[in-house]
This record gives sequence, structure tokens and C-alpha cells, in this order.
Amino acid sequence: MVKEANSEPKKLKDEEKEAFWHSTSHVLADAVKRLWPSVKLGIGPAIENGFYYDFDRKESFTADDLARIEEEMKKIVKENLKFEQVKMPRKEAEALLKKNGEKYKLDFLKDLPDKEVSFNKHGEFLDLCNSPVIRYTSQIKAIKLLSTASAYWKGESKNPMLHRIYGISFHSKTELDNYLAQVEEAKKRDHRKLGKELDLFCFSDLVGGGLPLYTPKGTIIIDELQKHIEEVCKKYGFQKVKTPHLAKRELFEISGHAIKFADELFSVTSPKKHEFALKPVQCPHQTQIYASKARSYKDLPIRYMESDKQYRAEKTGEVGGLNRVYAITVEDGHSFCSVDQVKQEVMNMVKIIRDFYTSLGLWNNSWVSLSVRDYAHPEKYIGDSKDWDTCEAMLKEISDEMKLNAKRCEGEAALYGPKLDFMFKDAMGKEIQIPTVQLDFATPKRFGLVYTNNDGKESTPVMVHRAILGSYERFLVLLIEHFAGAFPIWLSPVQVIILPIADRHATYAKKVKNELEECGIRVEVDKSQTTTEYKIRDASMQKIPFMVVVGDKEEQANTVAVRTREDSKVRYGVPLKEFAKEVQKLIKEKK
Amino acid sequence: MVKEANSEPKKLKDEEKEAFWHSTSHVLADAVKRLWPSVKLGIGPAIENGFYYDFDRKESFTADDLARIEEEMKKIVKENLKFEQVKMPRKEAEALLKKNGEKYKLDFLKDLPDKEVSFNKHGEFLDLCNSPVIRYTSQIKAIKLLSTASAYWKGESKNPMLHRIYGISFHSKTELDNYLAQVEEAKKRDHRKLGKELDLFCFSDLVGGGLPLYTPKGTIIIDELQKHIEEVCKKYGFQKVKTPHLAKRELFEISGHAIKFADELFSVTSPKKHEFALKPVQCPHQTQIYASKARSYKDLPIRYMESDKQYRAEKTGEVGGLNRVYAITVEDGHSFCSVDQVKQEVMNMVKIIRDFYTSLGLWNNSWVSLSVRDYAHPEKYIGDSKDWDTCEAMLKEISDEMKLNAKRCEGEAALYGPKLDFMFKDAMGKEIQIPTVQLDFATPKRFGLVYTNNDGKESTPVMVHRAILGSYERFLVLLIEHFAGAFPIWLSPVQVIILPIADRHATYAKKVKNELEECGIRVEVDKSQTTTEYKIRDASMQKIPFMVVVGDKEEQANTVAVRTREDSKVRYGVPLKEFAKEVQKLIKEKK
Repeated sequence: MVKEANSEPKKLKDEEKEAFWHSTSHVLADAVKRLWPSVKLGIGPAIENGFYYDFDRKESFTADDLARIEEEMKKIVKENLKFEQVKMPRKEAEALLKKNGEKYKLDFLKDLPDKEVSFNKHGEFLDLCNSPVIRYTSQIKAIKLLSTASAYWKGESKNPMLHRIYGISFHSKTELDNYLAQVEEAKKRDHRKLGKELDLFCFSDLVGGGLPLYTPKGTIIIDELQKHIEEVCKKYGFQKVKTPHLAKRELFEISGHAIKFADELFSVTSPKKHEFALKPVQCPHQTQIYASKARSYKDLPIRYMESDKQYRAEKTGEVGGLNRVYAITVEDGHSFCSVDQVKQEVMNMVKIIRDFYTSLGLWNNSWVSLSVRDYAHPEKYIGDSKDWDTCEAMLKEISDEMKLNAKRCEGEAALYGPKLDFMFKDAMGKEIQIPTVQLDFATPKRFGLVYTNNDGKESTPVMVHRAILGSYERFLVLLIEHFAGAFPIWLSPVQVIILPIADRHATYAKKVKNELEECGIRVEVDKSQTTTEYKIRDASMQKIPFMVVVGDKEEQANTVAVRTREDSKVRYGVPLKEFAKEVQKLIKEKK
Repeated sequence: MVKEANSEPKKLKDEEKEAFWHSTSHVLADAVKRLWPSVKLGIGPAIENGFYYDFDRKESFTADDLARIEEEMKKIVKENLKFEQVKMPRKEAEALLKKNGEKYKLDFLKDLPDKEVSFNKHGEFLDLCNSPVIRYTSQIKAIKLLSTASAYWKGESKNPMLHRIYGISFHSKTELDNYLAQVEEAKKRDHRKLGKELDLFCFSDLVGGGLPLYTPKGTIIIDELQKHIEEVCKKYGFQKVKTPHLAKRELFEISGHAIKFADELFSVTSPKKHEFALKPVQCPHQTQIYASKARSYKDLPIRYMESDKQYRAEKTGEVGGLNRVYAITVEDGHSFCSVDQVKQEVMNMVKIIRDFYTSLGLWNNSWVSLSVRDYAHPEKYIGDSKDWDTCEAMLKEISDEMKLNAKRCEGEAALYGPKLDFMFKDAMGKEIQIPTVQLDFATPKRFGLVYTNNDGKESTPVMVHRAILGSYERFLVLLIEHFAGAFPIWLSPVQVIILPIADRHATYAKKVKNELEECGIRVEVDKSQTTTEYKIRDASMQKIPFMVVVGDKEEQANTVAVRTREDSKVRYGVPLKEFAKEVQKLIKEKK
């Protein structure tokens, strides 16, 4: 089971950034008050990237307003004002805010318990504030107001609607430029945008959000990934199994998932009074295949793998794109083995993970978490404390031996045991946790799984859980955003597009298509009635690795004119067979 | 959508048989009364195969009892008694039954409304009866009492428990022998028995009945079938898609399935107030992929296929084995096309079906049903009557043109249109309907699907539904029982088993395994510490196509000693490479 398959990666808190951005929000409020003194202030916190401030003003802020505010902020920066904390008795604070007509601040003050109230002051501007700030306004070297929005005071629709301004600031213009470029790039790479442009998946109002439908092109990518993972894992003895999505609730009560996923468990009922649950994980089902016949130590390890959908009732408001969905397609696998086989099993799985992510160019940008239990809260886990100690020590040993340099992260273990989690950074610097290897002494005991050991007695196997690419949904997000849609050739839905110059080249185009297809290459012919130039532009937008132009010359010589999505330089007169071999080789090498 | 995927094939009623078997049940009752006059009679109907009679007797019937009864029955047959109907007034009948102490008959009589009651008489034996019978007991040339069972009177547990005797009879001993041989063979081939012996699938009490789990071996068969079907269909332009199992109920309300499958629709809810339905068919989801972008006549036909689980809430008491399950894995496909493309699409699909079933040796034993609507009940269907006429005529035309000789079956159409259904007989003579091609003008209209035609205007596409192997579950039943577990080589989970004569041949066995695996052959090594003879017996039981014995001679010469499951004759000294090529060829040719 892959706990993290559908959850967000951890975010690092950066207190310095927070103080910097919070201070800039004070400068923003000061600027607005200087320009429009009658405007009333809401609140202005630092957020993950930058800050915002809410204002009560009749009109919303226009683009021109933002430009004027930015100019005013720059003036305040230039004035090099000192940020100072000012404390005053509650009564005095109330009187001051009342005098200034700052009704939202007064409302906010009500929620503060203290007798003494803290303000922050720079120049003449005084704001209710108890957060760390920077020292001088001049430290803010670069400011950009990004956008506006509407927001109810305190987020409640019975309250007045305020106007929010979002912004960001940095220590230097270069940092700001980099940030803005990165935002621009992230927008271009956004998997929702590219997913639509490249026609990889879609959503339907009739089916519902959180339930992606994969088009033929998206299906090709998922199938290729699955085929690859299965081929690799087969070499390590994994066997595919297939399990249904339903089970009696009892199955998940025994496994512990009915409690762990209490709020996320979908119930299934029928007019005929059936009662089932939708599986939120694959492991309990797989234990039942193990349990279906007598097992001997000679049969171990028994390794099952399955790529299948599991279902979790995420919050409606939180589903969106492929990042968080109800239907999670998980590539899950389990090894049932004896204690003395565990180490080799885990090491094999780490090898599989290393090879797979190396082939995608992601391994160099990764770190490993040795996710152990939260020692203060043993009630969050199932299983014996002694088994946990054994498992944690074993994973540490493996980490050392394989030079994984795993960082010990307390409280990050799975329900049933500690694990090795692998964190990657995509091309945009975003950290994603996907693969995992988890030790589990508890589940086999709960299900009463046994094997006959070589003394002829019953023993309980250990269960090693592993996910290589985790959920296909989040892996697709990683792939799309990391490669900006320009997938490695072996994963590209269309690997070669043939662009006939004129109608009369249709026959030759067909011939080229057939020959390439016979080599196992995915090929399309652009049959649109447009210019070759337009066809090339279109194919580039679709990030198709190879564009092959065919005209009179090519037909006569049985060649193709090849250009790639990376390079506009054309290689003329490439013999068809040679080209086919070239592409075949790249596919085989997973380039 | 495949309406029949989970339903039973039609059974032919045979009134002659019924009279014959019902008459034999009278003879059975007569014989029991002759042997044990105090026994009271329940009822004795004809059933699908044979008849039974329920008796009230203290002791249950032993095997010896059955033999004695059979002897007694033969005597009655020899007496050549005439079956005669005797009518008498109700009062008189009551008095007679009371006199004879036949309390069950009296109870039964209560439920009969008529004033005059019908009996059947042969010799001295008189039984309450109103069914057709044969003329003389001597017509019964062969009798076999098959088994005993317990049954509550009228099937209600508050009533006394009676002893039931099952039997069968024929016009000749040859017929009886054939029948008994067939029963024996069917038992051996029963997919539940073989499924367990060959370790293809299993059930778990914790998961629940009707929810099969596929072991590694069963998964191989399903995957091979899927791969094959997909390869074939790809050549005809089908593209794979993937859809979730959940959807808003609205999707099925629009498609009409919410009504059609009202009792079979599983509802899905969550503690977070989500409400979904589990898909009972694939088609509505696939329409939503079509609808996800603008389509032009140049894009048509658009053909989607998907092998995925769908869920139907069958009656708990009716699920069993793979024949009737909640989780049905359906291989479903749809072509969205213009009206003038329909004929070619249907013909292509029929070609695919013909090729596929020919390759399995089933085509010669098939017939085609042109399943049209029930003209007396138009309310059972969706869509315009004019469209229905067009569709039915089109299928007739195709049937004629392709010499399918389709039999017109009224009332057998799908919800949305007529279809061609293909019926096959398995090796046991059992008729199974699996593949189907269905025309559908209604669904695209209901979902508002459109494409821009070559006049630049909006047109509605036609949807052609097709299933080649229908549900994998029922197809597996067909395969297992038809081949008695001895699957064609390409479908065999293990294609070659290597039997090393002694421990010292383990290294060579491993080498043979690796070489064969590199040729894409599924191989296992028998590592058990038993005799070669026992290993061969075990491999034969597992119906493994090739058994390869390796010993000193083989190792020295780099050869193998080959025997097949069909033939105990051993081919010695087959060069390893030659053997690998031979098996590879058979796999490729789908032998």
C-alpha cells in the first residue's frame, strides 16, 4: 500500500522568507493608504509564494491601480524606513483603531486574548502585527504585484467582500525575474493545460470531477509505463495478479484500513441489500491470494504486483486535475517472504527504483527518507514494538549498505511499518515523493498468513510493500510537468508523424507509415489540407519526437526528410529502413 | 455494452423429454411403495436432466436402497403397464388420499383450485398428477438413480424434511451410457474444479463470493487474451482508453441504464456525502471521451476499446464460480461513425469475431442470431422506430452478404438497438453466447454527441457496440471447460516445465530455462525432491504442454528430452535451440 500515493509532498517552512514577505505586505498597505486614505485594512499575511493584503474599497483594483501602488511601494522602500515593534495596552490600541476607523482591525483585535497588543510601525504607518519582520524597507529590492481577487472578510460569506492584492518581493531583481520566469514556465507545463493540449485525459461533468478518463494517447503512456515496470519487476520474480475493487468491509477492518481511511472509504450498496467497500489500497486483497492455498518455505518469496484503480473519498473541494482524484490507479506490489529473505527483497526493490528513475534522469536529484514511527504516539500504528525495532534497524542497515544516505524522518512511517521513501525534484524544482519500500510484520499476522517452514512448522511470512511509480495519476503529473509534454520517445503517444507535401504523396506516406508500424513504431499521417509549414508547427506543438516530410524526391529515393522536435535542422535523404532502425533503437533504449 | 455478458444462455424446452422423465418418476414412486408401503409420497417432477421424487421415510436412502429400487423399477417396466389418466371429484380424491395416509398429497391438493382432480395410474399405482405422460412403462428402456438429497416439504424449513431421490431415464441403454459419460466428463471439466486444481483463480470469504481474485496463472491467461484481442482490433483502428468505475448516477440516467439495471446498480456513498454509481456497462463512459473535444467527419470512425471491470448486483444466491459474478471484466468496444460507415464497421467486427473463434476451433460449431426488438413491447427500448427499422434492415443485409445465415430472434435486441449475436457450442455441447455486434442510433442522441459533417453542419454519429470475447469470466469458463484445462499453448500459464533428473542437473536446468525465457516462453523448473515419474504425472495433471527432462546426456549434448501432455512418447536428443524455435513458432501461430 502506498500511503502517499494521493497526498501532497511536505512543504519546507522558511521563516526568513515569511518575515520578508510579511514586511512587504506592510509596505503594500502603507502604499494603498497613502494613495487612498479612506480605504480600510483587512489582513496581510505571507503565503507560500509571496503575500497578500485585503482592502475594503468600493471599486476593485485595476491594472493601473496596481502599477501606481507598485510605484508608491518603491518610494517607501527608498525612504529606508525602519520596521519597529510598538506595544500598547489593549484599551489604547482599541482607541487608536477606532479613531482611524479600522473596523476590520477592531474585529480582529477581539479575537486576540492578550492585554498588551503588538503593532508594527515603519515611518508613519502603524499596523496591528505580531509577526517577525525585516529591519528596513530598503532591504526589499524587487517588488511585483501579481494579481487581484475578491475575498470575504474572515472567509465567511455573511461578511463584506474585500479586495485582495497578491504580490511577491525579493532581495534582488534577478531573483524576481527568475521567479516570474519560473511561474511562466510552470503555467506552460501545468499538467491540466498540457493534458488538454496533448489530448491525454479529460473530465466529464456527467462522470464527475476526480474521475479522469484517459483518451487513447494518455492510455498509451500509462500502458507503456505499466509494461515497462512489469517487465523489470518480472525479472525480480514478481507475478501479476488481478483483484476486484469491492470487498466486504471486514477485509479492511482486519487490515486496519477501515479505521485509517474511515473518512475516505467508499461504501457500496445495492437494492438487493449488498454491502461492500471500495478498496482504498491493494494489499488486503493480495493477502487473500496468498491465503488461497498452502504455502511452503520452498515457495517463498511469493511476489505479487498489480496496476489497478483504488478509490478514496477525497474532499470534493480538493480534487482537481490528476493531483488529487477519487480514482487512483496504483502500481502496487508485495513480497511475502521469510525474515531472512527480507534484506535481499528490499535491496532488489531499491535497485528497481534506482534503475527506473535513473533511466528517466531523475535519480541524481533525489533523497531518501527513512520514515520511522512517531515514538510519542504508538497508538497510530499496528503491530509489535519489537517488530518495529527490527524493521527500522533493517532499513537503516540497507540504507548504509546501499549508500542511500537516508534521512531519518520520525512520524512518517506507514500504518504497519517503517519505510524508505524516495523524493525527487522535477525540472521545476518541485519535490515529489513517489516510490517507497515498506516493511510489514503486522498485516500477515492479522490475516493469519502462514507457510510451512523447513522444520515442518507454521511460520508467519513478512510482507514487503513496494511502489515503483506509485499512482499513475501523480506520475503522469510528474512526467508532463518535468518534460513539459515532450516525453521520452518510448513514452510518446505518437513517435513519428508523416507530413506529405501534397495530395499525390499520400500513397508513399501510407507506405512509410506501414513500414514504420511494422517496426513497432507509433505513427500518424497528417492528412490536413494545410501547408507543410503549418503541419510542422502543429506537430511541434504536439511535441512529436520525429517529423518526417515526404515529397517527390523522397518517394523516388525511398527516403524521408527528418526533423526532430528539438532541432529544426532537416536531415534530407535518410533511407527509410535506416530511419526505422534509428527510431527502433531509441525506443528500445528508452531514450 | 454487452447485455448478455453475465446472463445464462437460453434453454430449449423439450416436452417429450418432460413426459418421459415425469412418467419415470411415477415408476420410481411405485417401486418405493412396493418395497416400503409405509413411506409417504411428496412430489416427483421432471427437471432439466431427469427427475426426482420426495419421500417421507425415517431413514435416508442408502446406496443399497437405490440399487433395490432400481431393480424394482425394472420389474415394473417389464410388466409393461399402461399409463392412464383417471379423473375423480375432489371429495372422492380427498377420501382416497386420506385412506392411504398420503398427507403431503392432501396438502398439495389444497392448492389445486379445480373441482375435478386428475390422477395417473399404472397397474395398481395411482398418483395425483395432471402432466403429460408416456403410454407404457416398457418404453423406459434404461434407468439410473443418480443421487439422494434432503429437501423440506414445499421448500420451507418449518415443514418436515423429506428424502429426495434423483434419477434419469432413456429410450436406450446407449443413451444412458452416453449421458453418464458426459456427466462424468463435465464434472472433470467443471471450471470451479479445474480452476482450483490449475490454480487459476480463487475466492475469499473476506472479499466475498461473486468477486473472483485471479492468481498469477489466471492473470496470464486473461492478459494473453487481452493482448491478442487488442492487437487484432488495433489493426481495425481500435484505440484503447481507460475509464473509472464510478460516475454520477446522472450518466446512467441519460443512457437509460439506471432504469434497465435499476436492481443491479450498485450505489457508492462516502462519509463526505459523495454519491456515485458503479458502472454496470462501459458505453456511457466512452461517450464522454468522444464528447471531450470537437470532432469532424474526417476523424470518423473513432473506435475505442477497453477491457475493464464493471459491476452488477446479481442475486446473492445466484453468484457462483465465474459464471455469475458481481465483478465482470468486460472486453468492450465502440465505433462512433457516420451512417454510411456503419456497414463497413459491422463487417469488420464480424470478421474479427470470425477470425478469433476460428483460431480457437469454435467457429464451425456456431450459429448467428439476428436479435431484433419485441414488436409488441416498444416501451422496452429507447430510440426512434424508424432508426430501428434502418438498423434491423442493415444487419439483415450484412448477414446475407457475409453468408452468416442469421436466425431472426424477436425480443432479443439490446436496449438501444438490434444486434448480431454469435452462439457457440463447447466440447460438451453446451451452447454459449458471447460475441455480439450491436447498432445504436439512440445513445449518441441522448448524450448529444456530434461531429461536423462535410457541409460544415452538425451531425449525430452512430454507435456500433461490439464484444469479441465478452466477459473474461464467462470466456474463461468456456476455455477451461472446452479444453478441459489443456489450453492452447499460447494461453498456457506454463508452456514448458523442466524436470531435472537429479540435483546435479539443476545448473543445466537453469540454463535451459533462461534460454527458453529469452525466446519469450513461459518456463518453470520442477525443483521437488521426487522421482521423474512423479514429476511427469504432476506436470500432466497441470496440463503443461511440454515436459522437458534433462539429465547427463542432455547436458553433455546441449539437448532436451521432450514429451507433450498429449503424447507420452519421448523425443530424445532435441537440440535446445531447435526446441525453443519449435515452441516459439507454435506460440506465434496461436496453436
